[in-house]
Amino acid sequence: MRSLTVRELGEFALIERINAGRAQAPAVLLGPGDDAALIAAPDGRFAVSTDMLIEGRHFRPDWSSPHDIGRKAIAQNAADVVAMGAVPTAFVVALGCPAETPVQVIDGITEGMWTEAGRAGGSIAGGDLVRSPRLVISVTAFGDLRGQAPITRSGAHPGDVIAVAGRLGWSGAGLAVLAAGADISVAPEIVAAHRAPRPPYSAVLDEPSRPNALTDISDGLLADLGHIADASEVAIDLDSAALWDPALEALAERLAVEAALDVDAAQWVLSGGEDHAFVAAWPATAELPLGWRRIGRVLPGHGVTLDGLPHPGNPGWESFQP
Amino acid sequence: MRSLTVRELGEFALIERINAGRAQAPAVLLGPGDDAALIAAPDGRFAVSTDMLIEGRHFRPDWSSPHDIGRKAIAQNAADVVAMGAVPTAFVVALGCPAETPVQVIDGITEGMWTEAGRAGGSIAGGDLVRSPRLVISVTAFGDLRGQAPITRSGAHPGDVIAVAGRLGWSGAGLAVLAAGADISVAPEIVAAHRAPRPPYSAVLDEPSRPNALTDISDGLLADLGHIADASEVAIDLDSAALWDPALEALAERLAVEAALDVDAAQWVLSGGEDHAFVAAWPATAELPLGWRRIGRVLPGHGVTLDGLPHPGNPGWESFQP
Repeated sequence: MRSLTVRELGEFALIERINAGRAQAPAVLLGPGDDAALIAAPDGRFAVSTDMLIEGRHFRPDWSSPHDIGRKAIAQNAADVVAMGAVPTAFVVALGCPAETPVQVIDGITEGMWTEAGRAGGSIAGGDLVRSPRLVISVTAFGDLRGQAPITRSGAHPGDVIAVAGRLGWSGAGLAVLAAGADISVAPEIVAAHRAPRPPYSAVLDEPSRPNALTDISDGLLADLGHIADASEVAIDLDSAALWDPALEALAERLAVEAALDVDAAQWVLSGGEDHAFVAAWPATAELPLGWRRIGRVLPGHGVTLDGLPHPGNPGWESFQP
Repeated sequence: MRSLTVRELGEFALIERINAGRAQAPAVLLGPGDDAALIAAPDGRFAVSTDMLIEGRHFRPDWSSPHDIGRKAIAQNAADVVAMGAVPTAFVVALGCPAETPVQVIDGITEGMWTEAGRAGGSIAGGDLVRSPRLVISVTAFGDLRGQAPITRSGAHPGDVIAVAGRLGWSGAGLAVLAAGADISVAPEIVAAHRAPRPPYSAVLDEPSRPNALTDISDGLLADLGHIADASEVAIDLDSAALWDPALEALAERLAVEAALDVDAAQWVLSGGEDHAFVAAWPATAELPLGWRRIGRVLPGHGVTLDGLPHPGNPGWESFQP
């Protein structure tokens, strides 16, 4: 049976369908249905981040399911809020799609969004639905700092330990598998990590101890650590041995043999974006909390090095480069 | 001299250029440059609204300047926040554009955004910049309720007076002039009202008295009053004599003669969207504040009528209709 399109269902019926039966998070004082939503900000401030995903640029409908796309859109925004030390409370979503889009696609995206919003601790408090030649999703995420100072990128000090929570390079490696047209069964978990990142929110939010500086890895490890180094006016040196990932090494070897692909597992780890792992500078005296592993240290100076040497090559994602 | 493109300038230099020399509003505790911004919410809550504008659907670069497009994107979101009774505090903006976009276009859009944000009382606290096949702008607006209850769509009571602040039908009429390819000098102010709406924020925010129900007119007067009637479970009857606008009547006549266009000024007033005027249900005993004019009344029942009769024809904007 052919699925109904969004034009056939109509904007207002679609909005009703999207919101039907959804339970809002406690922070949402007034949800969808009026000119604006109303969100609680218990300590008199809120953290906010916004990201836009464009079909063909940030996701491909032939590589990711609607559910994956919805999860990814929420995850990358929730990770930004958590990277300030804030607990996600709510999200608003603007979605553009062609009038011929099957309603089932919107169902899948919204279901994925609600799944990830629940995982992060918030709900979808409102949005906008417009007609667009291609799918475009813009999410804005809100978070509560629970009375604490935000954890910025500028607090790293020489002597701090650089540590990461979550996986590095899996998203980039999964993308390489899809781009090569390789058999996905060579690395189903790595491909899944590309389709919908799983930021380890609890590694930041459930720990009483707090790092001096924190960010999430969206552009690539070297690029995002570069932002911390610049903002904190320090140098960061990474330990290559701590970055070695046997799963990625094995995948790179298989792709070389089976798809004649010249790939470098280290490149995925250092420059692959969209893992939305967290990387932080911790005081040297602190015991690293559960889920964090040491990958380097903060030094006086500037820039990011690997085993003391500058790293040549791709510096990470840039929006207007191919 | 050919203008630099955003690809040539690069994402990070463009972000720096956009934010250079901008003074943030007092509510912005932490502006652009980290994973998330930090906004004040003095009474422990904030109002939030989000809207997406797509090139070719919500604006045409050959009909509107970049400055107009920027103003419109902020104005329609600020109007939603004000329509809850909240004072705009800040905005975040996600912008997608082709890599070949001249940097001057982005300059114009951001300048228009800052102009309108200043008019509304806030500033642009952060955003996202991505590559997209067409221009797409997604704005999220925040507002402060100053300790008062939100003014929803559901508070209208039989006996209330329906009144409007701002112009009705000018945006629709200006669009008709542009669509007809008519000489813009027939009605420069009306065309300007289409290119960049001017919501009368102060008619809501500077008045100590508050209406029982309030919305902004984005889909059309009948459609948006229909939302108030539905949410409040009341009927609304409009007085056609109060809706008559000599400037629109004169324009309709000129377009009929000069462009052989069969247009109806009443249709612009009743169903034209995007004026972002405010329409409210005021207690019958209240003296209408400055800037408001009476156009109808609230009755028991349901639906919206004109001089006691149902109005046939276009019910207003629907996202997935042509």
